[in-house]
Amino acid sequence: MAGYTLYSMQNSGNCYKPRLLMHQLGIPFRLVDTDPGRGETRKDEFRALNPNARVPLLVLPDGRALPESNAMLLYLAEGTPCLPADRYDRGTCYQWLFFEQYDHEPTIAVARSWLSVYPDRIGKATPEQIAGWHQKGYKALGVMEQRLKAHDWLAGNAYSVADIALYAYTHVADEGGFDLTDYPGIRGWLARVASTPGFVPMDWRP
Amino acid sequence: MAGYTLYSMQNSGNCYKPRLLMHQLGIPFRLVDTDPGRGETRKDEFRALNPNARVPLLVLPDGRALPESNAMLLYLAEGTPCLPADRYDRGTCYQWLFFEQYDHEPTIAVARSWLSVYPDRIGKATPEQIAGWHQKGYKALGVMEQRLKAHDWLAGNAYSVADIALYAYTHVADEGGFDLTDYPGIRGWLARVASTPGFVPMDWRP
Repeated sequence: MAGYTLYSMQNSGNCYKPRLLMHQLGIPFRLVDTDPGRGETRKDEFRALNPNARVPLLVLPDGRALPESNAMLLYLAEGTPCLPADRYDRGTCYQWLFFEQYDHEPTIAVARSWLSVYPDRIGKATPEQIAGWHQKGYKALGVMEQRLKAHDWLAGNAYSVADIALYAYTHVADEGGFDLTDYPGIRGWLARVASTPGFVPMDWRP
Repeated sequence: MAGYTLYSMQNSGNCYKPRLLMHQLGIPFRLVDTDPGRGETRKDEFRALNPNARVPLLVLPDGRALPESNAMLLYLAEGTPCLPADRYDRGTCYQWLFFEQYDHEPTIAVARSWLSVYPDRIGKATPEQIAGWHQKGYKALGVMEQRLKAHDWLAGNAYSVADIALYAYTHVADEGGFDLTDYPGIRGWLARVASTPGFVPMDWRP
């Protein structure tokens, strides 16, 4: 049987998102470890599936490919409780997904990638670069805190793909040099996400 | 009657997206000019609507606010031909929207903002910054060209919010120093978007 295949790098928060959602939704899939750092996304056979040469990449049972972690979340969550049924709540779910890719990932995940993830980057970021990531990253965390100090979840009143998308890099923000001490709303929410049914940590594989 | 209100900066591609879509869908709205360059998004009354202090911001007829241009597109297009009815096509529509915010806007729109839009930025970008935006921006344009050299539209076989999102800054890419001569697929698609029913240019206001 041809099921879903996920091309994925284990230590990438973007790749963790669809792994976590598929496990929580009970969708079986095959994992193919794919390391951009070893050039594996620039090979012709991979670029034929994703011209943007990035992981994660989801290949559907019929062989068609879907790039972009947050597009996968919306695609897979449709018709499940992980996508809000209320139209406005769904709109705010979209809002958090775009916020994640524009304001959060480019600062918090990028700081982590230079400070903790890629051996060839560690020690090479300049103090000015790090300060820039931290200034913008703390601003993004402040926007999250404003929501989470008064609400259990990011979109509407229930756990959704918005929480999965933001959890992916927030829960390892310390690896990018971020300190969440002054963000009690975020810390409580991180614990709630980790207690959802079927939750698995980032190093989980099917 | 309280209808939709859009807080918007006229010369911003992100703000153009919901203006264009709402006009094409026949949704009336009130426009409130809001200039981040004059600090208008950092005022308390604006931050109460959008803690992220950004335009565009859409306020619904019931008074609730929705930030993020691409979230507005998905919210407003639901149930219309501008969001693909086919599930996979809808997935690829999501994909292009996230691609736009992650790979396209931060390079092509940012180059334009420094080279042509904000008077206090013009002339201040370093050659290294400009080269970085161009290197990444041309890569993003290459991903678009690969799709558009063989297809009329980005997602599925019809005009959708994916086309609106990418049109917003691609059609003014020259203002960021980008040359589309070698991108005939993109140039043909720009002309197709500008020929869709109800199309209005970026300087249009309701």
